[in-house]
Order: sequence, then C-alpha cells, then structure tokens
Amino acid sequence: MRKLWGGAFGAETDGLVDRFGQSIHDDLRFWRQDVTGSIAHARMLGATGILSTEDAATLVQGLEAILAEDAGQLPMDVEDIHTSVEVRLRELVGDVAGKLHTARSRNDQVATDARLALRDEIDRLIPLVKALQGVILEQARVAKGWPMPGYTHQQPAQPITLGFHLLAYFWAMQRQGWRLERLRELVNYSPLGSAALAGTNFPIDRQSTARELGFTGPIANALDATSDRSFVLDTLHVTASIMIDLSRLAQELVLWSTAEFGFLRLDDGVTTGSSIMPQKRNPDMAELIRGRSGRAIGNWTTLAATMKALPLGYNRDTQDDKPAMFQSLDLTADCLQLAARMLSGATWNRRRMAQAAEAGYSWATDLANALAAHGLPFRKAHEVVGELVRALDARGGKLGPWVYGEFLPLHLEPEQIEALRGRLTAHASIVARESEGAPGPKAMIAQLKRAAGLHRKVAFASIQ
Amino acid sequence: MRKLWGGAFGAETDGLVDRFGQSIHDDLRFWRQDVTGSIAHARMLGATGILSTEDAATLVQGLEAILAEDAGQLPMDVEDIHTSVEVRLRELVGDVAGKLHTARSRNDQVATDARLALRDEIDRLIPLVKALQGVILEQARVAKGWPMPGYTHQQPAQPITLGFHLLAYFWAMQRQGWRLERLRELVNYSPLGSAALAGTNFPIDRQSTARELGFTGPIANALDATSDRSFVLDTLHVTASIMIDLSRLAQELVLWSTAEFGFLRLDDGVTTGSSIMPQKRNPDMAELIRGRSGRAIGNWTTLAATMKALPLGYNRDTQDDKPAMFQSLDLTADCLQLAARMLSGATWNRRRMAQAAEAGYSWATDLANALAAHGLPFRKAHEVVGELVRALDARGGKLGPWVYGEFLPLHLEPEQIEALRGRLTAHASIVARESEGAPGPKAMIAQLKRAAGLHRKVAFASIQ
Amino acid sequence: MRKLWGGAFGAETDGLVDRFGQSIHDDLRFWRQDVTGSIAHARMLGATGILSTEDAATLVQGLEAILAEDAGQLPMDVEDIHTSVEVRLRELVGDVAGKLHTARSRNDQVATDARLALRDEIDRLIPLVKALQGVILEQARVAKGWPMPGYTHQQPAQPITLGFHLLAYFWAMQRQGWRLERLRELVNYSPLGSAALAGTNFPIDRQSTARELGFTGPIANALDATSDRSFVLDTLHVTASIMIDLSRLAQELVLWSTAEFGFLRLDDGVTTGSSIMPQKRNPDMAELIRGRSGRAIGNWTTLAATMKALPLGYNRDTQDDKPAMFQSLDLTADCLQLAARMLSGATWNRRRMAQAAEAGYSWATDLANALAAHGLPFRKAHEVVGELVRALDARGGKLGPWVYGEFLPLHLEPEQIEALRGRLTAHASIVARESEGAPGPKAMIAQLKRAAGLHRKVAFASIQ
Amino acid sequence: MRKLWGGAFGAETDGLVDRFGQSIHDDLRFWRQDVTGSIAHARMLGATGILSTEDAATLVQGLEAILAEDAGQLPMDVEDIHTSVEVRLRELVGDVAGKLHTARSRNDQVATDARLALRDEIDRLIPLVKALQGVILEQARVAKGWPMPGYTHQQPAQPITLGFHLLAYFWAMQRQGWRLERLRELVNYSPLGSAALAGTNFPIDRQSTARELGFTGPIANALDATSDRSFVLDTLHVTASIMIDLSRLAQELVLWSTAEFGFLRLDDGVTTGSSIMPQKRNPDMAELIRGRSGRAIGNWTTLAATMKALPLGYNRDTQDDKPAMFQSLDLTADCLQLAARMLSGATWNRRRMAQAAEAGYSWATDLANALAAHGLPFRKAHEVVGELVRALDARGGKLGPWVYGEFLPLHLEPEQIEALRGRLTAHASIVARESEGAPGPKAMIAQLKRAAGLHRKVAFASIQ
Repeated sequence: MRKLWGGAFGAETDGLVDRFGQSIHDDLRFWRQDVTGSIAHARMLGATGILSTEDAATLVQGLEAILAEDAGQLPMDVEDIHTSVEVRLRELVGDVAGKLHTARSRNDQVATDARLALRDEIDRLIPLVKALQGVILEQARVAKGWPMPGYTHQQPAQPITLGFHLLAYFWAMQRQGWRLERLRELVNYSPLGSAALAGTNFPIDRQSTARELGFTGPIANALDATSDRSFVLDTLHVTASIMIDLSRLAQELVLWSTAEFGFLRLDDGVTTGSSIMPQKRNPDMAELIRGRSGRAIGNWTTLAATMKALPLGYNRDTQDDKPAMFQSLDLTADCLQLAARMLSGATWNRRRMAQAAEAGYSWATDLANALAAHGLPFRKAHEVVGELVRALDARGGKLGPWVYGEFLPLHLEPEQIEALRGRLTAHASIVARESEGAPGPKAMIAQLKRAAGLHRKVAFASIQ
Repeated sequence: MRKLWGGAFGAETDGLVDRFGQSIHDDLRFWRQDVTGSIAHARMLGATGILSTEDAATLVQGLEAILAEDAGQLPMDVEDIHTSVEVRLRELVGDVAGKLHTARSRNDQVATDARLALRDEIDRLIPLVKALQGVILEQARVAKGWPMPGYTHQQPAQPITLGFHLLAYFWAMQRQGWRLERLRELVNYSPLGSAALAGTNFPIDRQSTARELGFTGPIANALDATSDRSFVLDTLHVTASIMIDLSRLAQELVLWSTAEFGFLRLDDGVTTGSSIMPQKRNPDMAELIRGRSGRAIGNWTTLAATMKALPLGYNRDTQDDKPAMFQSLDLTADCLQLAARMLSGATWNRRRMAQAAEAGYSWATDLANALAAHGLPFRKAHEVVGELVRALDARGGKLGPWVYGEFLPLHLEPEQIEALRGRLTAHASIVARESEGAPGPKAMIAQLKRAAGLHRKVAFASIQ
Repeated sequence: MRKLWGGAFGAETDGLVDRFGQSIHDDLRFWRQDVTGSIAHARMLGATGILSTEDAATLVQGLEAILAEDAGQLPMDVEDIHTSVEVRLRELVGDVAGKLHTARSRNDQVATDARLALRDEIDRLIPLVKALQGVILEQARVAKGWPMPGYTHQQPAQPITLGFHLLAYFWAMQRQGWRLERLRELVNYSPLGSAALAGTNFPIDRQSTARELGFTGPIANALDATSDRSFVLDTLHVTASIMIDLSRLAQELVLWSTAEFGFLRLDDGVTTGSSIMPQKRNPDMAELIRGRSGRAIGNWTTLAATMKALPLGYNRDTQDDKPAMFQSLDLTADCLQLAARMLSGATWNRRRMAQAAEAGYSWATDLANALAAHGLPFRKAHEVVGELVRALDARGGKLGPWVYGEFLPLHLEPEQIEALRGRLTAHASIVARESEGAPGPKAMIAQLKRAAGLHRKVAFASIQ
Repeated sequence: MRKLWGGAFGAETDGLVDRFGQSIHDDLRFWRQDVTGSIAHARMLGATGILSTEDAATLVQGLEAILAEDAGQLPMDVEDIHTSVEVRLRELVGDVAGKLHTARSRNDQVATDARLALRDEIDRLIPLVKALQGVILEQARVAKGWPMPGYTHQQPAQPITLGFHLLAYFWAMQRQGWRLERLRELVNYSPLGSAALAGTNFPIDRQSTARELGFTGPIANALDATSDRSFVLDTLHVTASIMIDLSRLAQELVLWSTAEFGFLRLDDGVTTGSSIMPQKRNPDMAELIRGRSGRAIGNWTTLAATMKALPLGYNRDTQDDKPAMFQSLDLTADCLQLAARMLSGATWNRRRMAQAAEAGYSWATDLANALAAHGLPFRKAHEVVGELVRALDARGGKLGPWVYGEFLPLHLEPEQIEALRGRLTAHASIVARESEGAPGPKAMIAQLKRAAGLHRKVAFASIQ
C-alpha cells in the first residue's frame, strides 16, 4: 500500500494492519470535497507567494482535471483519499504534486473535507424534509374533516380527524428542518490552515480559503479545529431524531394497516409479499424505517462512546466518525423519501376510521365538559360520566331511556338532556373543539394556513 | 394512594402497581412550575368567563398560597405532582379546586411543566458555561506563552503553549453555550390548552397563557404538543455533548497529573486520599466527571430507545423522560462547576512542560517546513527530516557535526544551516507559528481578544 | 463529612466535591453484604494470627451487633458504606475498629460487596422468572386450542392458538433463567484479599474467606479482581435482555387490548383511568414496562461507555456502576412480577380472536401446501393461491362456485376440491400443523409437557 | 430485481424500495450456511417422502454443485441470499428447484443461516482468544519479576511487576472464552422446520435436520424460533465486552508508549508515521482498537433499540441484525489479532518502568502495613506514614536522619527502624507481597502455573 510517510520506519506494516487502518473505501464518498479543498489551498499558496504562481497554477490545473475525471481514475491501493488524490495528481502533473501539502496536514484536511461533505449532505436533506411536509400538507388538506379516533395510551380517547393527526408530523418535520439549518450554521467554519494541530509558520491566508470554500470564516483555534467532532455528534443526533419521528409514523402506518385496524391500505409499490403466504401485504418499508431508527440511535452511541475521554489533538479513533455519519445521513435521506412515498400512495378507509371514532366512548370527555359547563365542578362531572360509561358497558354499549336516569341527579331540563345526547357523536365532538390547535373545522383551517405559509418559505427560519 | 380518576374501576390497584407508576418523587422537582402553570390557566379561565371571576380568583389565591408555602406541605401519598397540588389546593380553598382542571388534562399540563422547568434549567446552565469560560480565559492569558508539547496520537507533535491548548476548550464551550441557547428557543413554546391530545370545546385563550408564562407562543397542533419529546432528547444530547467535552478535559487533567507527566498538581480541595496508601493524591473529581459522561451518554440512549416507534398521543412510557433529563442536567451543572474549580486551583509545573516540549523531536515539522521554504518539495523535505530523526535516534538524540552531513544533499550554505539549527527549539518553533489560530505570540493575542469579546456578551449569539 | 483518609491534606474539600463524590446513599443498599464480608475478613485475621484472637473476636462481635441492628444506626454523613460501618463499629467496640482494615482496601472490599450483593439479586430474580413461566404455562394449558391469528409483519399469516403464542414467552424466559444462572457462576468468585490492587504482605488466607462467603474460590489475580467490572456489564446485558423480552410481551398486551383488536381485557388492578376521559382503561403497566426497557438499554450503554478505555487498577469512574446495576435489577424484578400479574388477571375474548383467525386469508399457506402435496411445485402452488386471494379480494372476500374455476388448471377431482375447501378454516389449518414445535394439538401437548418438565426443576440447567 | 413472490401484486416496486430492502450484499457472507441448511432440508424432504427420492437427490446434487462453485456464480440482482441460491439452483437443475421451498419459509431459513454462521464465527473467535492469551502468558513469564508501578486512579499506588499486570488480561480473556462457549451452547439449536412462524402440515423430521446440521436439537416452539434474536444481542454483548477489555489494553499501550511514560516501544509494523511530522511513531492500531470499541458498543445499542417492543413473529426490522452482528464479530477478530501482534512485538523499557516504580512513594502502604504488624492500629499507622510522606515531599523527596524522628512516637528499636528502611524499595515491596494472587515471586509462579494449565485445555470450561 502506498503511503505518505515512511521515512522513520524500517519494517513493513503487515496486511491486517494495512487493512484495519485503511479508510479509502469510506473516504471515496467525499473525494470531490477533498479535491475542492485542495484547489482552494493551492490557489492560496500561489496568492501568498508560498508557492510560485506557476507551481500553484499547475497544481490547480491538475486538481481541476481530477474533478473533471471520473472517481474511477483515483487509485484505491492507498490508505486514504488524501493519498489517493495526491498520487493521481502526481501522475498528472509530476513531482510538483509534492508541494501541495505545504502548510497543511491531513488533520486539517480531513476536518475540512468532513465539514464540506456534511454541508452538502444537509443541503440534500433539507429539501427532502420539505418534500415530506408537502405530502403531509396535501393529505391533511384532503382529510381535514375525516373523523378517526384520537388515542392516548393507544386507547381511543377523543375523536379527531385524520388531517389533524397528520399535521402533527408536519410540525415535527418543521422542527427537524430548523435543527438541520442550525446544524449547518454550526458546521460552516473552516479548519483549513490549522495544519496538524497548531497552525504553521508559512504566511498562509485562512480567510481567503474559508471564503473560497463558502465557509463563514476560519475556526479560531487550530487545536480545536482538528480535535472537535461535536458537529458530527450533532449530525448523528439530528438524524436519529428525524429517524425517531419517522419510526413513530412508520409504527402508526404498520398499526393502521393491520387487518384489525384496517384504516389504511399501503400501495403495492411499498409493500411486499411472502414466499410462502400468498395473501400477505407486508408493510416492509415501514418496518425497515422502524428498524433503521435503531441503527441511527446506535450510530450516535458509537460516536459518543468513541469521543468520550479522548485527549485533544488528532487521535486515530476519530477515523470511525465518518462511516457512522454517512450511514446515518443516507438512511435518513432514504427514509424521508420512503415515508413520503408511503403516505402519497396510501388509500385510506374512511368508513373504518369513522366507525372506530364512534366506538369506544370517545365522546365521554366532551360530555363531561358539557356537564361542567352546566355548572358541575369538573371532577364531579368526570365521576358522573365515568359511572355512565360503566353502566353502558354493562348493557353492551347501547344507549337507552335509562340514560335519563343517569342524568337525574343533575336536575337537568329535558332540552338540556337532548342537547347533551346530541353531543354523543364523533362528528359533534370534533366540530365543537375549536380551541387553537384543535381539530375543529375553523381551527384546522387556521392551522393549515399557518403550515402552508411556513412551507412556502425556502428556509426553516422559525420553529412553527 | 389518592388518585384523580377511579370512576370506571371496581378493584383497587395493588401496591407494586402503585409504586411502579408513581412519579411524585421525581415530579416534586418541578412543583413550582406546575403551580405557576396552573395560575396562568386559572387566570385565563376567569378572563374568558369559563369560570366565574370569583372562582378563578379563589383558585389563583390558593395556588399563590401554595407557591408561598414550603414544598413540604404537598402530600406525597399521591401518584403525581398534579394530584398533589390539587389535593393541597382543595385543603386550602375547598371544592372549587375541582374546577381548576376544566379545559385541561394532565397531558398538556405535564408537557407545560417540563418545558417551564427545562427553560429554568437552561438558564441555570448558561452562566455556568460562561463561568467555566471565564476561568479558562484567565488561565489562558497567564499561560499564553508557556511552552508545552502539542500532541497528536498522544505523541508529541509540535510545541504549543498551555494558553493555546486551554483556549481550545473556550471555543468548545462557546459552541455549547450556543447550543443551549438554540435549545431554549426550541423549547419555549406552550403546550397549555392542548388538553388530552385534541384541544377542548371550552373557549380558552392559549395566547394569553403562553404570554403569561413567557412562552414565544402556543404550539400549533394539540396532538404534537402532547406527543413531542424531541426537545428532551435534544436536552440529553446537548448535556451529553457538554459532558463529553468535559470528559476530554478531565482525561487531560488525569493524564497531566500523573507522576510520569507531572505537568499539573490539582489542589487538595479536589483530590482525595486513599484509605490504605497515604501518599496518594487521587484526581477523583476528574475521574468522576469522566465516569459521569458515561451516564449522560446512557441517558440519551435511554430516551431514544423509549421514544422509538411510539405512536402519537400520550403514552405512559414517556413518564421516564424526566428523571433522565433532570439527572443529566444536574450532573452537567455539577461538572461545569467542578471543571472550573479544578482549573482555577491547578498548579502548573512550567519546567516539566517546557522540558517535554523540547524532547521528542517536536521541532521536526518546522524544520521540514523551513527546508521546503528553501525550495525543496515538501514531500522531499519530509523525507530528509525523517532520516535525520532516525539518525538522531540511533545516536541517543544528540546533535553533532554529523548533522551537517545530513544537509549536504541540499547544498545549503553554512549560514543557512546555522539558521536552521536555530529553529531546533520549542520556543523558536512556537514564535514562528503565527498563522491565524496558531500559538505564535501575535496570533495568541488576537485569539484571546476575540474570545474575551465574545465572553463579555451576555448571550451566545455566535459560534465563534 | 468524616473520611478514612486525610493525613496528606491541608485544605478541606468543599461541599460540591463532597456531595459529588459521596456514594453512601447508593451503597446503603448493600450494607449487609459489607458487614458480612468484614466478618469473614475479621475471622480470617484472627485465624491466621494477623490479629490477636481477642481483637478478632471483638471485631466479629461488633460487626454481628451491627448486622442485628437496623440500618438506621449507620451514620450517613460519610463518604461511603465502608466508612459508615467502620465509624459505627468504633462506636460499638472502640479503637480496635481501626484494625479491621488490616490487609484490606476499599478496592477489594467494594468489589466483594458488589459480587455478594449481585449474587443475592440473582437469587431474587430467578424465582421471579420461574413464577412468570408458571403463569404462562398455566394460561397456555387453558388456551392451547384457542384459535388466534399468527402474525408476521404484524399481518395475519397463519392461524395459531393463544396457548402456542404464549409458550413462545415460556422459552424466552427459559433462556433468561439460564443466562442468570450462568451469570451467577461467573460472578461467584472472591476479590477479598486483593487489597488495593496487588495483594498484601500479611499472611492472609483468601481460600478461607472465599469459602466462608460462599464463593467458588478467590479471583486469581489481584489487579484483575479490583479492575474487572465486566460482570456488572453482563448483569446489565441480561437485565436488558429480559426487559426487551418483556417489552415485546407488553407491546402485544397493549396491542391486543386496543379497541380495534379487542382480544384482551386487562383487569382493573393493572389498568388506570384518565383524569379527563372517564371511559379509558389504560394499559399503563404494560406501557411502563415498555418504557423502562429503554432505561435498561440505557444503563448497559452507560457502563459500557464508562468502562471503555479505562486503564486497569481502581478508577473512581467505576463508582457509578452500582446505581445503574441496582436500578436495572430492581426494574427487572418489578417488571417480571407485573408481567405475571397482567397475564394472570387477563380476560381473553375468544370470539374476537377466533374471528380474526378466520379473516385475512390466513389459511392460504395451508392451501398452497395442500396443492403442493398434490404434486404442484411449491412455487407454482404459491402463485395459484396468490391469484385466488386476489380474486377473492375483488369479490369482497366471499367464496363461491367460481372458486372451482380457479382450480381447473390443476385438473383436480371434485372430491379433492372438496377436501381442499375443508381446509379453508382456521381450525382445520391449526389441527393439521403437527410438525415438532407447531400449534397442532399433539404437538402442543408434547410442547407443554416438555415445558412443564423443565419448569419443575429448580435450576435452569438447560436452554430448552 | 427477481423476487420469490409477486402473485398478489399489480404494480412494480420502485428503485429506492428495492435498494432499501435488499439484503443480498450482507447475506452473501453466509451463502455457504444457506446452502448447507438447504441440503439438510432437501435430504429430509426425500427421507420423509414429502418429495420423491429422485427430486430430493436432484436438489441435493444441485446444491452441492453450488457449494463447489465460487460464490461468484450466485446472481446478485435479487432481494436476498435465499432467492439467489434458488435462482442459481433453477439454472442448474431446472424447475424442480421450486420444490426445495416445500415445508419451509424464509423465516426459519434465515434464522437457521444466522445460527449456523454465528456458530462458525464463534469457532473462529475462540482460537484467537487462546492465541492472545498465549502471547500474554509468554510475555508474563519473561516479565514476571520486572518492577513497574501499580496504579490506582492512574496514580502510582504500589510497585507490581509487568508480568503480574499482563496476567490480569489473561484472566479477562479467560472469562471472554468462557462467555463465547456459553454463547455457543445457547445458539446451537435448530429453527429449521418452524416455517413462517407456526410449523407446517407436512410430516417433516426436525430432529434429523437438526442432527445433520450439528445442532443440539430443534427449537421447541416455532414462533419463538422465528422471533428470537436475543442470541444476536448476546453476541453483540460478548463482542462489545471483549472490545472493552481490548480498549483498556489499548489505552495502556497508548499511555505507556507516550514520551512521558516511555515504558514501551511498539514495533514499526503496528505504528504509523505522519505526513507532516517525520519523528512520529503513532500507536494507530491501539487507537483504532480503542475507537472501534465504540462501534461495538453502538452495535449492541442498535439491536437493543431495534428489538425493543417488537411483537413476536417475523418483522422486517430484524433484517438489520446481521450487518451489526458480522461487523462486531469481524472487528473483534481483527482486534484480538492486532492486540496479540502489538504485545508480541513490543520492546519494554525495563529501566524506565523500574525508575517509575521507585518514585512516587509507592512503598508507603507496605510501610504502613509493617507498622501495623508492629502493633500499631492500622488507621494510626496510616496516619503516621501519611505525615512522613508530607515531610518527605516538603524536603524534595529525600530521606535523611530526620526520618528517625518521625518514627520516635512508635518507640521502635534502631534495628526495627533499619528493617523498616529496608522496605522502602520497590523490589522489597514486591517480594514481600506473597498473598494469593499478589505479585510476589512465589505467588506469581503459582498464578502462572494455574494460567498455563487452563491455557493448555482446548475449551474454556472454567472461569479461572
């Protein structure tokens, strides 16, 4: 294996050691960023007179030629991407390639590559979050008045609408977009020029390389620039957080598409069959999203454990941050798309949802509220309705004239009782709930409008 | 155990069930926030006419009396803090207490409590981050020119200064302060009025309660408001991130105070002795910080695993988010203070650090750079210096006239060689490194000024 | 705070330091084990002549007096349990108490305490695993022939019986019992006499103390004895593994007791109501089990991160192993009992389960198998049944004469077709599946017998 | 992509879905086990008459031909390894290939593959544990009398020997071997014949397939057989536990090879240089081991989070268990070898270790013990020696006649004092510590003999 070092060593490292330490297969992912960073560095070396104008121009030309080539031209029998690019550069421009590494180290180089690559990844994720929000918004508009049970403890609690339920995920994704943009702010500083850990005695210009690479500015301390991986842990946190949100959605899609719930039929494109059970429509994509949220959680734990108690200055342990980071970014990007794909192709069974919304006494809270509005202390109203539910349960859930008896202690007028009975439907319950953020029709229109307004903006400037 | 519910139940829950589900001992932590939230709710109920002005006034009065009392007056033989406060309120104001729960549920109440309490905790942590930065800054100013080895791979790489090394932690803490402030923005929205999951049919005014409680505004979707715990996971991430930074500092303090390094003597106040080995000066506080970063990592994992694949709507599983959250917040607050305490009492052994900075050929990079500046391609310069180091090693590390032979291939003039020899000290190496963010004297003054400027600001508005 | 050391220190450690390092509140949990270990040590000191017979007798007497007292007599204004016991001992027997620590250190003492306490905890857990298995076995016997859907991907796959499903948990618990017993073997070695890390120059007898304390023998290397915490990580793994099994059961109980499934009614003792929704029967205990499995997972992660990269020899970081260990043990013990409690009080809705077993084409695999047994290659049979299911779906799930058309390509005789039709019930499907480990009646009787045989044994000597 | 199902589906799944669900690239790892399992299944189908003798023979022949081929013949444009093998089989033997899946499902097939593959992996790891123990044992024998400091809290505590320190790792590895063998016992049961989740109505013979595949027996419950992944979590625990042990060794190797400790020079084969600092000898392999222990920890967390709250019956989430499992197994195998490689090539600096052992008052405990043996209560002896250490510290660590003054309060005879002074060396301290498991010469010979005896055995039948 070709290496950038070796002067002080007599013996050859053996095969396992080479394989174990090799990162080129992971690094290849960010070869463009590596070359781009080198171009900025080479230009700066020329502009500051550290290299001659000709040498700098030759280096830039060679690097641009690499950018224009396919990654397939980069040698893979090397330790890492930095070596690979340098070897290729030497093939293209000759020994002047050796001058590219002036006033630079692999330590600041890899930190620069990681930040550039991560910035690109964030810019890839953000539109996917927007796109999922778009699908949610569209479906929520259509289903804004479709009754379904609202659950707490996975028991029917109060009737809501499907549109209202789906919008909860819109806001979750709004937070995720906001988190991604804050992360982008944090990441967007330049380690380039920090060299191994402590800067350099060459008169480099870190402002110019930072500017050329689109960074907000150089990182203020060279040791910090090469030691910090907290932005990678942030990335693993945000991706895990998105995956946890998606795992909750996936769980609901799995649940709702069970034979027993039957609220939902996922389309053929995202379900799979069984090699042995011909009737199966398995929500595999939802299951895989749910499962891969476990991987996203494990990746955060991996890096947290790795970074714990690591002294400052580059340590080889941190090599493993990038496979975890890219894996989490990739699976998050995939799952955001799959979630949108599943929702947009879903066929909802309005009838089953509406039936479930009527069942299970989910109007009981509203009735208790109504009694309270008639002057009963809330706790007392709660007790009365609790007894009513027990009585109904004992009678197989059927209402009858006996119900009036239940209300006698309240000394209500017959008209009041009729009004109360009118409330005992999911529809009546939903339309009455018009508090801000509730599923009542006016409240929903307001919420949809607010969501659409935020969705039209390019950025995630506000949390809600 | 006294409970807020029970109408629908015949049998009594048994002892284990009661104990297992009880959260009052954890909740007591945020009793003030619970009462404060209730006051805002009661005022709103009065202002909107949902309760009579008298009832509302009675409730507010009672709640303010509870705030004025000691927490010791709150009954503990209850399930949770909400019940405890209501029971106490009933003792103080009678049956009208039952009206407080109108248009509210424990689901939005506990979410409100958690956000209020977390906001207070963040406001407690931020000054502790500032205080630690202050200690770092002070010590970095004093030690800005004290040579010490800079390490990569825990091997001496290039000489730096203690001040430069310490400042790396200043910037790490600047990021943490920034993260905490972003978290505060995210948290500061009001779930109050979301009721169980779907709002209410009472004409509540969520804007007014949000305003009274200092929130930016109400959360837009009632289901989201009661289901979301991602802000708690954010909290566990930021605290884990701070703890990982502190564990790295702790690891360095442990290392530097070993007999072998001897850079540092921690003061008596933060070291402990041994019951059997009278000579020991154990860096227990640094070890405990290091150890407790493991706990902070485990707490993130706990909640991530808990929230994964949980359907929306309140689920009892989330009860466990608060013990983890408060534990991580507390240990982070403690460790920020202990880290400041350890640093401010530390006695540095400048001589040992300077000796170590001279040893280990840590000037080698500078020499290679100098040769490169004389026109050698960097890779060639690197090879020549590598051979020199091997030759020195074989001769027990001593320089001699033979060195000149090493440089012959470069065809240097004697004066050039003398100039190069002058570079072979830690001091020369440090003062020459004046790139932005490097430990050279001018660069350090600039960095200290920048840090001090940020430190003077109340907020952590910028990352660096 | 009273401490066992202090000679080398001038200044007093401050309040935060004391509080942060104090472990007495956690340690109190194993005060009995601490005293018991000390009795063995004191006896050995006497028997070997290291202490005089009188001194040893006095120490043993004093320690036995402490054992006989309430823990309330132990002072709590101390660092740890070892100090607390020694202070109390001094109150009881005077200055001779100072001799107890001869040839011992807190390092081997705490390791001994932890192993003794853990052994007791395992002995507490094992019968709880047996008890849960007992409940499962009992219910499985009753429900061995009750049809229910068997699910894969949470979609109905093939009809099974409730008894068959429940027995899956019997075997899971059998593995857990086996794991606990293997853990007990591993744990049961004595660190006592390893002193701080390297044994002692006193002529101690480690065999005798190991024997007296019921250990298999002394740990072979004193440094290993005081550095190893892998048995605690094993404990956190086994408890997490049990909790994951219980979380799967809890998830099914939650699912099955939804209004939509309706297979199960949990009894009043383990469900709770709502403060706002009177009709709710929340499966809180199942939710809490599910949630606390997250805590058990986080505790493993905590210790794994803590132990990673820790040099040998006692490090203060390991102080935090015990709170995590006892918390996981306690919640596992609680949850084993709660799971048994929930199952034993459950009311099953046989009708709903049977209906669900008939629905959803779950007989399709059996039909494909039957066709294959008639000579069709399995893949072809699978395709034919797949088409039948699609045809049924299009006709609203109703069978009719058209079905015969479907079978025509198979050229079956009418009697064969009738025989196949007979298979299209859950009951027929179940009784036909008599392979080893399947839910068919004979296979179930065999499986129940095997399970009962293992359950009757005191130990978990075999995995199944 | 070619699939085994499809009858019930109209639309084609799209590209992302295919890619996201595809496991063939991970599965290829266990293609041999998949084919081997299929051979056993095919033989059994023939022996039981479920297939004709000819069909069974054809299948077996085809499968054996696949085994004899290179894996390169297996198609990769398929979902998983089961499909790949079946497609290839069809190419070789024609349509009869379709009969192989009779009385089997991918659910029991993948569970069988996983257990077979894991058994092979354990059999690969066990000799690597033995080999590392062999290197440790060899080095411990050589270095059994080489003084070095024994540390607690990373502070010198008492002198030990390098051999004694290294043996601590021998015992740690003995436990790991024992854990691996217990895991092998647990894993070695056959799921084959459990079909999708509930057995089959074909008269299969699970005993015979279990026997042929070398399993202890069939798993007792078909649902359990296809749902259980706890053995994978066990695997991830044991590998993480091994990696944590190795990370502790790696940490010590990093520490000991710092310029400041200087105990150790790792050989060129396992260290690497720097692209910018020619003098560096970086312990990269040790750092990578340390870092990858973080990955092993994260993999456990991944699967624990994935399995939590998953209902029984195959769920697609569990597809992700195998990448994590094989990754942890591979990195553990690599790191066991690298640790052995690093140790066997290490050059120890006996002089530096011995000097460090003399420094730091590490004889103080022995002196306190000696005073205690002269009749002083241990606590008093501890105090006296503590004062002596403080006095020495104030005098720059030099002993002198003033020391006698320190001992006056003890009323010792001059000869006694001389004897005590004789103890004030590392050598004297070590040779006096002859308690079982201590580093004294006789104790070490006994410990080495015990270790060698266990090492000679093929199995890890006992813990120590």
